[in-house]
Amino acid sequence: MEGSAKLMKRLLSELAAAVDGDLVGPDREIEGFCSIREERDRAATHLSFWLPQRPIAELLGSQVQSVLVAKLPDPPGPERDALAGRSFVVVANPEFAFAQLLNLVHPQARAQEHDVHPSAQVAEDVIFDGAVQVGPLAVIESGVRIGAGSVIGARVFLGQNSQLGADVLLHPGCVIYEDSVLGDRVILHSGVVLGADGFGYAADRGRWVKIPQVGRVVIEDDVEIGARSCVDRAALSETRVRQGTKIDDLCLVAHNCDIGEHVAMAGCSGIAGSTRIGSYCRLGGQVSVGDHLELPAGTVVAGGSGVLHRIEEAGIYSGMPALPQRLRNRIYIEEQRLPDYGRRLHRLEQRIAELES
Amino acid sequence: MEGSAKLMKRLLSELAAAVDGDLVGPDREIEGFCSIREERDRAATHLSFWLPQRPIAELLGSQVQSVLVAKLPDPPGPERDALAGRSFVVVANPEFAFAQLLNLVHPQARAQEHDVHPSAQVAEDVIFDGAVQVGPLAVIESGVRIGAGSVIGARVFLGQNSQLGADVLLHPGCVIYEDSVLGDRVILHSGVVLGADGFGYAADRGRWVKIPQVGRVVIEDDVEIGARSCVDRAALSETRVRQGTKIDDLCLVAHNCDIGEHVAMAGCSGIAGSTRIGSYCRLGGQVSVGDHLELPAGTVVAGGSGVLHRIEEAGIYSGMPALPQRLRNRIYIEEQRLPDYGRRLHRLEQRIAELES
Amino acid sequence: MEGSAKLMKRLLSELAAAVDGDLVGPDREIEGFCSIREERDRAATHLSFWLPQRPIAELLGSQVQSVLVAKLPDPPGPERDALAGRSFVVVANPEFAFAQLLNLVHPQARAQEHDVHPSAQVAEDVIFDGAVQVGPLAVIESGVRIGAGSVIGARVFLGQNSQLGADVLLHPGCVIYEDSVLGDRVILHSGVVLGADGFGYAADRGRWVKIPQVGRVVIEDDVEIGARSCVDRAALSETRVRQGTKIDDLCLVAHNCDIGEHVAMAGCSGIAGSTRIGSYCRLGGQVSVGDHLELPAGTVVAGGSGVLHRIEEAGIYSGMPALPQRLRNRIYIEEQRLPDYGRRLHRLEQRIAELES
Repeated sequence: MEGSAKLMKRLLSELAAAVDGDLVGPDREIEGFCSIREERDRAATHLSFWLPQRPIAELLGSQVQSVLVAKLPDPPGPERDALAGRSFVVVANPEFAFAQLLNLVHPQARAQEHDVHPSAQVAEDVIFDGAVQVGPLAVIESGVRIGAGSVIGARVFLGQNSQLGADVLLHPGCVIYEDSVLGDRVILHSGVVLGADGFGYAADRGRWVKIPQVGRVVIEDDVEIGARSCVDRAALSETRVRQGTKIDDLCLVAHNCDIGEHVAMAGCSGIAGSTRIGSYCRLGGQVSVGDHLELPAGTVVAGGSGVLHRIEEAGIYSGMPALPQRLRNRIYIEEQRLPDYGRRLHRLEQRIAELES
Repeated sequence: MEGSAKLMKRLLSELAAAVDGDLVGPDREIEGFCSIREERDRAATHLSFWLPQRPIAELLGSQVQSVLVAKLPDPPGPERDALAGRSFVVVANPEFAFAQLLNLVHPQARAQEHDVHPSAQVAEDVIFDGAVQVGPLAVIESGVRIGAGSVIGARVFLGQNSQLGADVLLHPGCVIYEDSVLGDRVILHSGVVLGADGFGYAADRGRWVKIPQVGRVVIEDDVEIGARSCVDRAALSETRVRQGTKIDDLCLVAHNCDIGEHVAMAGCSGIAGSTRIGSYCRLGGQVSVGDHLELPAGTVVAGGSGVLHRIEEAGIYSGMPALPQRLRNRIYIEEQRLPDYGRRLHRLEQRIAELES
Repeated sequence: MEGSAKLMKRLLSELAAAVDGDLVGPDREIEGFCSIREERDRAATHLSFWLPQRPIAELLGSQVQSVLVAKLPDPPGPERDALAGRSFVVVANPEFAFAQLLNLVHPQARAQEHDVHPSAQVAEDVIFDGAVQVGPLAVIESGVRIGAGSVIGARVFLGQNSQLGADVLLHPGCVIYEDSVLGDRVILHSGVVLGADGFGYAADRGRWVKIPQVGRVVIEDDVEIGARSCVDRAALSETRVRQGTKIDDLCLVAHNCDIGEHVAMAGCSGIAGSTRIGSYCRLGGQVSVGDHLELPAGTVVAGGSGVLHRIEEAGIYSGMPALPQRLRNRIYIEEQRLPDYGRRLHRLEQRIAELES
């Protein structure tokens, strides 16, 4: 088997029922999940999904026999044959239904019984609010409190007085500095660092004097943060990542930032200090946002862009510096014409000189 | 209490004396530090600072009652009321004084007595030059020497023959490869890696052959490096970060680089191999500097910029590729006019053709 | 001694023989390796190399007495004196020969005998296929299999069912999630994370619902990955890095990517999801490549560039968005003329208006 997906034996009709979908076509035994582009044996036995905004050719050309769809596909006559014998499960949102079924079969890790590995170093006054799993060689300092169902991976470090909600999942090697606060169902991937000092110095005749960073980090419910990402503690008050927000690998949220609810921030992106990202914003990969800025709710920033100025109005922004995407795309096309513009300018000047003389 | 700042009880007059400042207005009991924008209860009991280059409105609108300032504010008559009853401490450099007071109340961690956690793995020949604190599950290999007052956090790894100065602070999870040298008062945040192999390969008919990296890393006194940043060991000699330099999170200093004194390098920035950054340079976030380049002392590179060529003269540089900021800002404005330029060129060509015919 | 290079005593003639080179000039005792720019004592006793494409002045001005070269240097008469008394070893590829000799003197770490540190946490069913070295405080979970000669550094975490080939070298603190597959001679630097969840969510009325990532990561033979880099597990199938590829520090390879053979990817670069990088591609530092793209074999992307579109033809690409380097360099020159173009356009419009009236 490729991939780590567990094999299962479930009837497609059962899965359809679980997501309130209508099964059209033969019932089948489903063994796992696959992409619509799957070309191997799995196409016969695995379930996939197809999004209505994708070209119909993708579905017609696919070998996958069981597909979640938003609407029964209805291609013109001759192409209809390509779908013959396939099974469709019609649901409102196929990708969401696919996620639901995957979660059903591969539920998030959760502590079922209290189990602290004997090699873990746990301070005496740590409070476990129910069953918590603590992996080998974890270090939990004094004053920490952890909610029921949480899984603390191997080699995790929890600094003094950190507070963790219920069903938190910390993958191996995370480091949580003192006084951090994590809500329920927070997932942190390996090597996330929460609460390291923000980058704050005062200049004294050209030399940098550290401004002790005495604020904290607050991560609200249902936030997930990718491997090796960092959220720095605030200088004086707090750095906050609000509920439902998802942050990819190798991202930086600097001190005093406020990241809104249900934001998505793709890999290698960095938000400089004291910036506020509104709820439902989406940032592509390797985006940088300057310090003390604000992005209104729902703003989208394309991958590789750099936001240098406050954005006044939600919309799609792109480029360096980030501009409304339409304008930026125009510039991307026009800048390729620059050598031509230079030549044309020169020729015009010559022709006018001739006319003038 | 929000933030991890310890509450304290100090008279403002005492604090003023500690930074050689003049108290103007009533003495008060100060419980902590806050931002000038603080709007909660803390405004009455916490000390802030105000910089003369900021708009006076910021100070007038602030609710903070105790403020470090460079000069007694003297707004026009009617606005003066907004300051009535407040206390000001007049100092030469308010931000620096603020940093000094924060350091007074929140001093950097320092080993007071020698204390090696029993779970740490420490080679027999490690030399402690005085009281050193070694956290749980740290690994210290043979030949290492550590100066007095240093704090080695939980799960830190110190490779063979590393030499650490006095009062070094290594946060949990740092990895120091063999033969690294750290000066006094160096601070490394969680997950910093010093001395990993530089990216050096020879090509043999299209395939990469590793060039063993046999140099080392030297970090001088008073350097601070943020979480998850990496300084690679040199190919043959050394990679050096000079005294007083501050590096933010998720930065990369590649092999053979020489980073000058009192440099500031903000998050997600990368310096490619063999590049020399002059003293007092300041690099914004997500800056990249190419290999084998040189930045003269005092150069400033704006966030998100890419330095592709040697910079001959100190100044402020910006954009991709980095150009003098004035020129780059002109380009940022002009490029938005490009669609208009195209249209105007076309119209000119038509008009000239008409004149010519 | 500066750098961590071991001192050695070898005759230059011996070293020449080892790389099939011709020694021209006196035989010498060689104590180590140095750069051609070495200016200290080492210049007399260390071996360097000189590339034919570099200016001859570099060689003439160098104080290094023993140099690997592709061809015996033959400068004009008066300059020839600068080379008098030096020793040259003529080889086909001086940099490759230099790498070979460094590898001879500084061979990669390899387990000679089976040695599991008593503080390591190793599951009972772990299979060691020969002598393996496991460092202090490593954690190896159930179902893992490790090939002969491999070195598992301190504090490494190997998740369930991971499979490692022979002579693998994992530096301290790497985290390998469950079900990962590593080939022979893979080198991972400190803090590499393999197999963390890809960034996959379905939107349900503006909220993100996690799509469990149930694929895996496959790292083929002779791959080396730099400190703090991440390769995410696939959503459903696999993320693969093919043989001989070298990835620098702080890089991200997102889920479902396929990185070809003998690729080089410099620091701080990120490849978004499902993108295919062809064999022999070279990516400079801080490059971003968008999702679902393809780079043909042999493509070169300059540092700091952002690939936003599928590249159809191999070549050198540069800038944001990445364009053929010739065009991009033209744009870099032309954009600096934009303020001038604006002025010239305006003047032309005035002159034409005068002509027209």
